[in-house]
Amino acid sequence: MSKRIPVIERIMSANDQQALANRGVFDRHGVHVVNVMASPGAGKTSVILATLRALAGRLRLGAIEGDLASTVDTDKLRAAGVPAVQINTGGGCHLDANQVAAALPDLPLEQLDLLFIENVGNLVCPVGFALGEHTRVGISSVPEGDDKPHKYPSIFANIDALVINKVDLLPYLSFDMAEFQRLVRSLNPDIRFFPVSCVTGEGLEEWAAWLSALATNN
Amino acid sequence: MSKRIPVIERIMSANDQQALANRGVFDRHGVHVVNVMASPGAGKTSVILATLRALAGRLRLGAIEGDLASTVDTDKLRAAGVPAVQINTGGGCHLDANQVAAALPDLPLEQLDLLFIENVGNLVCPVGFALGEHTRVGISSVPEGDDKPHKYPSIFANIDALVINKVDLLPYLSFDMAEFQRLVRSLNPDIRFFPVSCVTGEGLEEWAAWLSALATNN
Repeated sequence: MSKRIPVIERIMSANDQQALANRGVFDRHGVHVVNVMASPGAGKTSVILATLRALAGRLRLGAIEGDLASTVDTDKLRAAGVPAVQINTGGGCHLDANQVAAALPDLPLEQLDLLFIENVGNLVCPVGFALGEHTRVGISSVPEGDDKPHKYPSIFANIDALVINKVDLLPYLSFDMAEFQRLVRSLNPDIRFFPVSCVTGEGLEEWAAWLSALATNN
Repeated sequence: MSKRIPVIERIMSANDQQALANRGVFDRHGVHVVNVMASPGAGKTSVILATLRALAGRLRLGAIEGDLASTVDTDKLRAAGVPAVQINTGGGCHLDANQVAAALPDLPLEQLDLLFIENVGNLVCPVGFALGEHTRVGISSVPEGDDKPHKYPSIFANIDALVINKVDLLPYLSFDMAEFQRLVRSLNPDIRFFPVSCVTGEGLEEWAAWLSALATNN
């Protein structure tokens, strides 16, 4: 183990340096950047699309889409008029700052207020890699169950806000919202919660208002 | 990159060697081992518990539970009478063969017919690491959406069977079962599908019968 630690530190440091450079680019263009992290199927792309509808032109959105393969999410966003760039990681389990840097020339940053970076669907690996974002948001969907903070504490401890998605399914599940929020707060006392449904629209106005304030203060 | 490839090969080879050794231990004890891989919240532990009920004493079950932290799943299984050992990976995003080997002395292998190894909830990393299992099973839950094979092809291509869980929620979702199965089969023509609900019990008898046949032929 003693031989491996310096290598890991060097890799992290190179990523952090590139993340800082990315941040500089974002700040020069006045774009607020949100790194979106969640399990596969929690609804990352659906939340971005619902946010677009809830903002109704108040902010100019863009997106970077991270996936192992395919362009299905980027296709959906472009069809909705969002400038979007796909990063396919091959087998890679998270985005890193170099991949994001390589995607930036394909985005009209000067025309954006808010850029979502949709990370690879993974509740473990993405949290260890800064991308240059200003804000880190997690998305949990209620069908995943209310016990996830016990098992994946690092992500819940290292985000600024948590969207709790698919609340329209609550009547059909045994998800304890109060207990779930209590568990998350025990790891992260200052976190903001946004329970939402992209089907009914519930909660999206509060979420969009929070994002608007972030982007306006940038 | 040219410097990194030999290192990766050496690590993989060490894992594969330990996986082979694990397989030898399993075969000597006549226990059939299933590596269960899925997203967080797909219902891995619920499926194991429902399998226990569906088998109703026909097979003797055991489990190894992989999680970043906590013993909540192991506690549930032990409460149901299943011999279970917890592996906490810290930040680790998948189980490896050495971790499984270290857990084996704590299991009564000579008294088991079927051992589930519940991998860390992650649709990307676990598939790259053999543990010594005879059979690889994925679990997808229908709230995750029918587009996951596009985005995470490696896991769908490298499993023997796919449990499609939470089908009781289908009336409330826009999940296209036929299209989902078509996508998975395009990656893996010989895969077996088991649509199930751990709430209603639907489909569990077929799944339990398939496992019984595997364990009996061991």
